[in-house]
Amino acid sequence: MRMSRMMCLVVAVCASFSVHAATPVKSAVSMSDVLKASSATDWRALNPDNTLYLELEKGRVVMELAPDFAPRHVENIKKLVRESYFDGLAIVRAQDNYVVQWADPDEKREVNTAQRKLDGEFTVKYNATLPFTRLPDVDGYAPQVGHSNGFAAGRDPKAGTTWLAHCYGALGVARGNENNSGDGTSLYVVTGHAPRQLDRNITVVGRVMQGMELLTSLPRGTGALGFYEKPEQHTRIVAIKVAADLPVAERSQLEVIRTDTPTFQKLVAAQRNRGGDWYKVPAGHIDLCNVPLPVRAVSNKVQ
Amino acid sequence: MRMSRMMCLVVAVCASFSVHAATPVKSAVSMSDVLKASSATDWRALNPDNTLYLELEKGRVVMELAPDFAPRHVENIKKLVRESYFDGLAIVRAQDNYVVQWADPDEKREVNTAQRKLDGEFTVKYNATLPFTRLPDVDGYAPQVGHSNGFAAGRDPKAGTTWLAHCYGALGVARGNENNSGDGTSLYVVTGHAPRQLDRNITVVGRVMQGMELLTSLPRGTGALGFYEKPEQHTRIVAIKVAADLPVAERSQLEVIRTDTPTFQKLVAAQRNRGGDWYKVPAGHIDLCNVPLPVRAVSNKVQ
Repeated sequence: MRMSRMMCLVVAVCASFSVHAATPVKSAVSMSDVLKASSATDWRALNPDNTLYLELEKGRVVMELAPDFAPRHVENIKKLVRESYFDGLAIVRAQDNYVVQWADPDEKREVNTAQRKLDGEFTVKYNATLPFTRLPDVDGYAPQVGHSNGFAAGRDPKAGTTWLAHCYGALGVARGNENNSGDGTSLYVVTGHAPRQLDRNITVVGRVMQGMELLTSLPRGTGALGFYEKPEQHTRIVAIKVAADLPVAERSQLEVIRTDTPTFQKLVAAQRNRGGDWYKVPAGHIDLCNVPLPVRAVSNKVQ
Repeated sequence: MRMSRMMCLVVAVCASFSVHAATPVKSAVSMSDVLKASSATDWRALNPDNTLYLELEKGRVVMELAPDFAPRHVENIKKLVRESYFDGLAIVRAQDNYVVQWADPDEKREVNTAQRKLDGEFTVKYNATLPFTRLPDVDGYAPQVGHSNGFAAGRDPKAGTTWLAHCYGALGVARGNENNSGDGTSLYVVTGHAPRQLDRNITVVGRVMQGMELLTSLPRGTGALGFYEKPEQHTRIVAIKVAADLPVAERSQLEVIRTDTPTFQKLVAAQRNRGGDWYKVPAGHIDLCNVPLPVRAVSNKVQ
C-alpha cells in the first residue's frame, strides 16, 4: 500500500509537475500586464454577508470569511459580531514572524446567541461542487494545493479532505488543546512566513483582504508567545462588524481576483517565472503562499 | 537529456524524500527539549569580525555576514561601515510582506575605500570544504536545500552552485537592473513570506540574528514598492558598526545553533512533526524557511 502510494506520486511528479525538470523560461508578460488586460468578469465583489471589518483606531482591516471551509465557525463568529462581542476588546498578542491575536483580555465577557463549544473544522470533505484550481507546483505540506474561491487551500484526494492553508493573512480560530476549544471569541491572523504546520490542526475561517499593515506594524509583545505584558500595550478593537450590516456608503467596496479563470492562470504563470529586465533567472516554481491574490477598490456607486 | 534528469529526480524522491509517502508520526520530543539537552558545543559564537550592528534609536539589530557566499560584498560592506558610510542615513522603505531597505535618501554620500561597482554574487561554486547539512524535505525552488554554517541555502549539483535563500531575516544587497549595480550602500532585510523567487537573482550577504522586531514593526511606506513618501517618515540609522570594532563590553554576546550537529538534526525532526498535546496532525514536512535557527545571549564575562 505504501509502495503504491509512492509509485502514484512518482507518476504525478514525472507527468505534470515542474520540480526542477525543465529549464524555466522568463514570462513575456508581467502580473501588471495581466491585471491591466483583465476584464470585469475576472473579479468578484466580496460577499458583504461574509465580510468582516475589524475597526481599529488607526483604520479598518477587511477580512473575508470562507463558509465553504468552516461553516459552523463562520456562523458563530457572525453571531459574536452581531452581539457586539468584540467591541472594546483588544489585540493581546503580536508574535514576530507568526501571528497577531485578539481576545477578551479580562476573560469576562459573556456570549448570548453564540456557542461556547464548537467542534473544530480543521478540514472539510470535498466534493465536485467545491471549486479548486490546482497549482501544478510541488508542495511539501499537502498532496495537492491550489485555490478555492480566492482562498489558498490544500487537498488530500486519498483522505477526501481539503483545508485552508496558513498563508500570510490567513484568519484562524485560536483554540486550546482540545479540538472543540475554539469558538471564535479569539481569532488570529498570520503575519509571518506561512506556518503551514498549523494546517489541519486548527480552524481557518478566512483571510485578510485589506489592512494587513495595521496588524503587521504593531509593536511585538515581549511576553511568552508574543503576548503583551501590560494592558496599556494592547491595541483596542473599536468594533468588528459584518459588512452587510453597514449602510452601503460605509462599506469598503472591494473586489478580489477570481481564481477559476484563464486570467488567474496567466497571473500565476507570470509570477512563477517573472520576466522583465530585473530578473535574471526565473524561479521555475511558485509557492502556494507566494501566489498573489490581488484586491482592488471599486467605487461605491456602481454604474 | 531532459528525460534522464527527470528520472534522476524520481529516484531521489522515492528513495530518500518524504513527499507525502509515509504517515508521519508526532515527535516524542519538542524543540524546547532538544535545546535544553544541548551542550556548549552545539552552539557557536557569532564571529565579531563578520557581525554588524545596525543601531537604531529604538535598539540594535544584530546581523551576521556570510563571507563564504558573498566574499566581495562582505568585504565592501565592512569597508563602508568603517568609513561610517551608513551613519545618519535612513530606512527608506518598508513594503508589507516583503522587505525593509535602507539607503542614502539624498543619494549624495560618497564612498572612499569601498567599491562603487561589484559583480553580483548571486551564487557561488561549492566544494567539499563548504559545509552543507542537507534537508530531506522537498523544495520547489532548489534541487537541494539545507544549511551552511547557520544560513539557509539552496544548492544545484548539476550547476555546481549554491546560494543563500531568501528566508525571513535574510540580508541582501539592493541592486538596479544590471548585475553589477549593487555595491552594499543599500541593503534590505526580508520581512515577509520568503520571496524565494529572488534566490540566484541578487546577492544575499547574511541574516538578522536579533532585533527583527525593530524592522518588522515599522510603519509601512505608502509609496510605490513601500518607499516612504516623506523624509520625516524615515527611520534614522544612528550607525552601523562591525562588532569587532567595539569594546567587548559593548558587544551583543550571542551564540547561534550549529547546523552541522546531531542536535540540529533532532531539532529539525522535532519541528517537522511537532509533538505535545496541541498538535493533532504532524505536518510530515518542514519548509526550509520554517527551520528555526535559535540564537541565545551569553554573558559578556565568559568564565
